[in-house]
Amino acid sequence: MTGTLYGLGLGPGDPELLTLKAHRILRSVPVIAYPAAEGSTSLARAIAAPHLPGGQREIAIPILMSGDRAPGRAAYDSAAPVIAEHLAAGRDVAVLCEGDPFFYGSFLYLHARLADRFPTLVVPGVSSVMAAAAASRRPLSARGDVVTVLPATLPDDVLRPAIEAATSLAILKLGRHFSRVKRLLAELGLMDGAIYAERVTQGGERVRPLAETGDEAPYFAMILAYRGTEPAIRGSLA
Amino acid sequence: MTGTLYGLGLGPGDPELLTLKAHRILRSVPVIAYPAAEGSTSLARAIAAPHLPGGQREIAIPILMSGDRAPGRAAYDSAAPVIAEHLAAGRDVAVLCEGDPFFYGSFLYLHARLADRFPTLVVPGVSSVMAAAAASRRPLSARGDVVTVLPATLPDDVLRPAIEAATSLAILKLGRHFSRVKRLLAELGLMDGAIYAERVTQGGERVRPLAETGDEAPYFAMILAYRGTEPAIRGSLA
Repeated sequence: MTGTLYGLGLGPGDPELLTLKAHRILRSVPVIAYPAAEGSTSLARAIAAPHLPGGQREIAIPILMSGDRAPGRAAYDSAAPVIAEHLAAGRDVAVLCEGDPFFYGSFLYLHARLADRFPTLVVPGVSSVMAAAAASRRPLSARGDVVTVLPATLPDDVLRPAIEAATSLAILKLGRHFSRVKRLLAELGLMDGAIYAERVTQGGERVRPLAETGDEAPYFAMILAYRGTEPAIRGSLA
Repeated sequence: MTGTLYGLGLGPGDPELLTLKAHRILRSVPVIAYPAAEGSTSLARAIAAPHLPGGQREIAIPILMSGDRAPGRAAYDSAAPVIAEHLAAGRDVAVLCEGDPFFYGSFLYLHARLADRFPTLVVPGVSSVMAAAAASRRPLSARGDVVTVLPATLPDDVLRPAIEAATSLAILKLGRHFSRVKRLLAELGLMDGAIYAERVTQGGERVRPLAETGDEAPYFAMILAYRGTEPAIRGSLA
């Protein structure tokens, strides 16, 4: 009997935004694995920490962050055989994922390397996009809205048509692209009502009108912006 | 002391996909409210049912479904004062929401009518879009992907540019628009790898290649489609 590989969505940061299902699995598996950026603590593990029963084996996957580049696949090439060994020995392994495992998550690197060899279950999680909308007190979408999620890392000529075709926007991974994206939104007439959200549901949460921000933003911050449809049902930023 | 209005995201259908936070609030409030389409049971209440402690007052908001039209606002005009009376008397009211309250949810109608008068907290939930991706065993997005969520109710001339600007698509609210949207995706070369998903995480879940479906789909079904980027890390439909 081989073990099961779980991709556990842990939600945006508040440990209480875990699902009951992720919580049950998290407490039952003998092995957990999680990405850990070098020199900092793992957000995924921090979300899980209050729920861990103790005594689990832990596999920290060391991620080299190099500016805005995606974490190198090499770390997953190294981690996959370690995880595979546990699975082959019959031990379930839960990979801890911030947000949702299949929504811009690094779990897909392990999924691509292991899911065809071992039983795999992905447990969806609350996305930071929905959490940011909740924190901003402004509905993300209604009825005929077109919602588009974009990484700020894309060039303007890719961002522009996607922004123009949408009525609700979430722009992720701001970092050093923040000023450029803000200029683009201003040019497209979308600053009005736009929201800046950082560390949503975590300690140090910052949610404010985009127009009141400076030029700096961390990588894990996002903008929510809206074409001016149906303002009456959108409510307002408190 | 007035009560608090909660918009509780209950997730896509599996009662175990409630968050710990929604679960705690659900069990503590004296009043719950939920939309109930005439002649059928309320999905939101069904998701909550296994968790209800009993003895809560219930406000069923009767929704008249007329074909593909959005539920009439009249029902919310009638329900808002009933909910307001409980809040004014100091009783917390939780509005039960399928999926996420601010992502195409009807909670926004109550939010618009009550949030400026009473303390309001929105608890984000797992979206059916993420749940469908998990059930299809295929990552929704990675790295530079542009994710767009579209209601199928929109006309082709709105759908087309939004589809063309995206790399990952979720098309919701299929119903009688199913055949038309399928034709549009075929025309745009996006049938390959596209997924049809219905009643995800609920009893009767159906997830299959879009190419293997007929001409009929219920309103609460969706299509996931992908421009052919990075197939190597997407995994495959089991």
